[in-house]
Amino acid sequence: MRVMGIDPGVATTGYGVVQRTGSTLRLVAAGVIRTDPAADHAARLAVLWSVLGDLLATHRPDVAAVERLFFNANVRTAMAVGQASGVALLAAAQAGVGVAHYTPLEVKQSVVGVGNAPKRQVQSMVAAVLNLPAAPRPADAADACALAICHLNRQGLASALTRAERAGTTR
Amino acid sequence: MRVMGIDPGVATTGYGVVQRTGSTLRLVAAGVIRTDPAADHAARLAVLWSVLGDLLATHRPDVAAVERLFFNANVRTAMAVGQASGVALLAAAQAGVGVAHYTPLEVKQSVVGVGNAPKRQVQSMVAAVLNLPAAPRPADAADACALAICHLNRQGLASALTRAERAGTTR
Repeated sequence: MRVMGIDPGVATTGYGVVQRTGSTLRLVAAGVIRTDPAADHAARLAVLWSVLGDLLATHRPDVAAVERLFFNANVRTAMAVGQASGVALLAAAQAGVGVAHYTPLEVKQSVVGVGNAPKRQVQSMVAAVLNLPAAPRPADAADACALAICHLNRQGLASALTRAERAGTTR
Repeated sequence: MRVMGIDPGVATTGYGVVQRTGSTLRLVAAGVIRTDPAADHAARLAVLWSVLGDLLATHRPDVAAVERLFFNANVRTAMAVGQASGVALLAAAQAGVGVAHYTPLEVKQSVVGVGNAPKRQVQSMVAAVLNLPAAPRPADAADACALAICHLNRQGLASALTRAERAGTTR
């Protein structure tokens, strides 16, 4: 199974493609999509859509794991994140890729084991899980990988539970 | 000048195309784009994008006037509105149509003259300004027309001021 984590933003969107083969997770690609701060806001969304579409077509993930939005103190940031998130969901739908959502808390709990883990610890775990000398850079790319790992962990847990249930019923 | 007002939402997006010829405003088209509540969230955004793209190509507005987002109490609604807004801006950018943003307060002040006007009063003014027996229905379509009228009013004011300034300097 291949998952593309997407951490959406108008200025910077992180992405990380992680492949699971058996019980091994491997990094396929990770990076960030940056848009020109001098460009028109709508034009920046168009660049984001176009590059995400290319990445989805290139890496053909089974699922896109997208950060679930929370609107908090910073209204201006929240608005832009919502818009970038909409464009990311659109690109996934157009590529025929299903979307799963996870909150930052769920990602930390899944990747590190605790919900209040500092960012650096998440990055160390991403590097360890993917068997890399260091986490992908910049931080938004590592965050996107953490989203992908979170989805794969949960899928792994779900199939293990299904297997256990089946074993239970046939016993 | 032709303006398409867009009042974005995932479930219902209102649109209204208004043409100004001289000092006359005329309704070209108005309506709503509804998406299937039973469909996947990302798929609904894809429908919105596709229909908005068709409308922009059909009506070829000079400008899209889009409601500026405010994030308030209802986090769930705000998230969806942000995503729909992102898709609307994307569709406009891809159609080569510039975007102007107005808050609900600015629209009411421009169309009715006061910022705290009730919705019904805005709708009556939309009907009066466009010389229609009644405001376009449903309400989201009328709201989108109000956005378009707001932009045309402000443009009219801006060019009147420019004319006045020029007259002043040549005097």
